[in-house]
Amino acid sequence: MDVAAAILNNVTEAVTPEEVDALAAAPEGSRAYVGYEPSGVLHAGHMLTATKLIELQSVGFEVLVLLADVHAFLNNKGTMEEIQSTAQQMQSQFLAYGLDSSATEFVLGSSFQLERGYTMDLHRLAVETSLPRAHRSMAEIAGETDATVSQAIYPLMQALDIVHLDIDLAIGGTEQRKVHMLARDVLPRLGYDAPTCLHTPLISDLSTGVGKVSSSTGVTLSMDDSTDAIAEKITAAYCPPTAAPPPTEAGEARGHPILELFEYHVFPGWMPWRSTDRRSTVARCASRRTTRSRRRWTMGACTLQMRRPRWRRTWMR
Amino acid sequence: MDVAAAILNNVTEAVTPEEVDALAAAPEGSRAYVGYEPSGVLHAGHMLTATKLIELQSVGFEVLVLLADVHAFLNNKGTMEEIQSTAQQMQSQFLAYGLDSSATEFVLGSSFQLERGYTMDLHRLAVETSLPRAHRSMAEIAGETDATVSQAIYPLMQALDIVHLDIDLAIGGTEQRKVHMLARDVLPRLGYDAPTCLHTPLISDLSTGVGKVSSSTGVTLSMDDSTDAIAEKITAAYCPPTAAPPPTEAGEARGHPILELFEYHVFPGWMPWRSTDRRSTVARCASRRTTRSRRRWTMGACTLQMRRPRWRRTWMR
Repeated sequence: MDVAAAILNNVTEAVTPEEVDALAAAPEGSRAYVGYEPSGVLHAGHMLTATKLIELQSVGFEVLVLLADVHAFLNNKGTMEEIQSTAQQMQSQFLAYGLDSSATEFVLGSSFQLERGYTMDLHRLAVETSLPRAHRSMAEIAGETDATVSQAIYPLMQALDIVHLDIDLAIGGTEQRKVHMLARDVLPRLGYDAPTCLHTPLISDLSTGVGKVSSSTGVTLSMDDSTDAIAEKITAAYCPPTAAPPPTEAGEARGHPILELFEYHVFPGWMPWRSTDRRSTVARCASRRTTRSRRRWTMGACTLQMRRPRWRRTWMR
Repeated sequence: MDVAAAILNNVTEAVTPEEVDALAAAPEGSRAYVGYEPSGVLHAGHMLTATKLIELQSVGFEVLVLLADVHAFLNNKGTMEEIQSTAQQMQSQFLAYGLDSSATEFVLGSSFQLERGYTMDLHRLAVETSLPRAHRSMAEIAGETDATVSQAIYPLMQALDIVHLDIDLAIGGTEQRKVHMLARDVLPRLGYDAPTCLHTPLISDLSTGVGKVSSSTGVTLSMDDSTDAIAEKITAAYCPPTAAPPPTEAGEARGHPILELFEYHVFPGWMPWRSTDRRSTVARCASRRTTRSRRRWTMGACTLQMRRPRWRRTWMR
C-alpha cells in the first residue's frame, strides 16, 4: 500500500508534504490525532476526519481521539457535566463509525489540560502570542459570537495538546488551519517541534451551501438520523446543477454539499477514480438529469452509503 | 482609633464606602491583600500600598502579600526562576519596610495559581469576559506593549486570586481600578462575592510628571538607593511651582511627583493635617520659594523621611 497516498487521500492540505513523506516512510508507531468538541451526535462534519483516522490506522499509525471537553467549555457549549456526558456518547459513536477499539486511544481533555505543567506551558504560549493572532485563528471555529478571553486561550490549548499528547500528525478540518499554523509558529519558541498537520475538506451547509455543515447551526446528517430523516434532508438540500455554485447576492461563497458528500463520503469506497477526477464526473452526471430525478438518485446513493459502508469493511480487514 | 478613617487614609477610592464601613465595624480577622509583580527592588511606587497594609495591620486586619510570580511572567518580566529569585528579595524588603513579620502572610502566586481548581475557574471567567474588556483593564498595568494573550489572562487571575486567597479587602494603586471593577462584575457570575476594593494614589513619574513612577521605565526612588542617590534624583525631579502642572504640549496630563511624595509619604507620619488639606498647603509652601531653595528643602525632607520613618514606629507599637 502507498502509505503517503493513504495519508494524503481526501486531504486539502498537508503541512508540509515533505514532513508527511518522512512519516510515511516509517508510519508504525507514529501518533495521529483529531480533537473534537463533544457538542452532540457524530455528524457528517466529523466523519471526514474520523475516516482519515481509520485510514491512518490501516497503515500503522497509533490513533488518538481527543474528546476536548475543556475546549467545548471555552467555546461556550455547556457545563462541564453536560459536555462530559456528551463525550461519553461520542466515544461510542466513533467506535460504531469504524475506529478500531483496540487501537484507538480516547483522551478527555480535562484529564491532562488542568495539570500544573500544562497550565504553565499555556502561560508561556500566552506570552508569545499576540491577541489579534489568537483571535483571528478562532474566526472559523467560534463563529460570529462576541470574542471572549476563552477564545484566545482555546487555540493555544490546541497547540499544547499536540505537544502534551506526543502527537506526530495533527488532523483537522480546514477551519483548523489557522490554529495549526499558529501552533507551528509558536511551539518552537518554547523549544517544541512544529507539528505536521493535515487538513480535510469541509462539507458545505446542506440548506444553503454557505459555510460549513455544523450541528450548532443549520441542518446536518447525524449518526442517529433515521434513513427517512436523511432522505428528507438530502431531498431538501441545496443542489444546483453545477459543480461551481455562484456566490449569494450578498457575495458569500457557496459550496455544493451534495457533490461534496459524494466526493468525500460516498465515492472513496465506491469508485477507483482519483479525487481530482471525481467532482467533475459527478457534476457532469448531475447536470444531465432533471432536478427531480437527480434528487432521487442523490438520495438513493446517500442512503446506500449510510446502510452499507463498504469502504469501512475494506479498511478494517 | 477610628478604624474606617485608618482604612480610608491616603486612599483615592473605596469600592464601595458602605462595604468598607461594614469591614471597619468588625476588622479583626478580616483579610486584606496586595499583589505585587516581583519586578525589582521595592520603590516609591510600592510604598503606598505597603503603608496601607501596615495601617490595616494596626487596626486588626490579617494581611497577605501576594508575590505574583505568574503575573510577572505573564507581563513578560523574565523567566520564572529570575522572578522567583526577585520575589524572595522583595519579601525581605517588605519586612524591612515595616510589615509585621509575625502577622503577614507571604504567598507565591505559583503555589496555588497552577492548581486544577484555579485553572478551571480561570476558564470559567474567560468564558464570561470579553476580550476588549480584559484588554482595556490592562492598559495601565502592561503599558504600551503589543497586546498578548497573556495580558488578557492576567486580570482574570487577579480577580480569582481575591477568591482563592479568601480576601475581604483588595488593595491596589489606581492603575488596578479597571481590573478590580472587572472582578466585581464577573466574579458574581461564578457565584463568588464581588470584592471590596481600595485604590491608593500613584506617584507621578519623577522626571516628567507624566504617567506613574515605575521601576521598568524612568527614574524611581528605590529601597537600595543611597541617600546621595535619592538626593540626586529629587534634585533633578520635575517640580514646577504649582500644585496643578499644565499638560504637556502633546496633551498628556502631568502630576507633581515632589508634592505627591510629601503628601503621601512624608506628611502622613509628620503632620496631623487631614489628607485633603495637605496638598494645597504644600503647594503654597512650594510656590513661595525659589526653585533652588525649594529643591534643597525638598531633598532634605525626603532624606529625613528615608532615615527616620517616625510614622512607622508609631504604627508598630
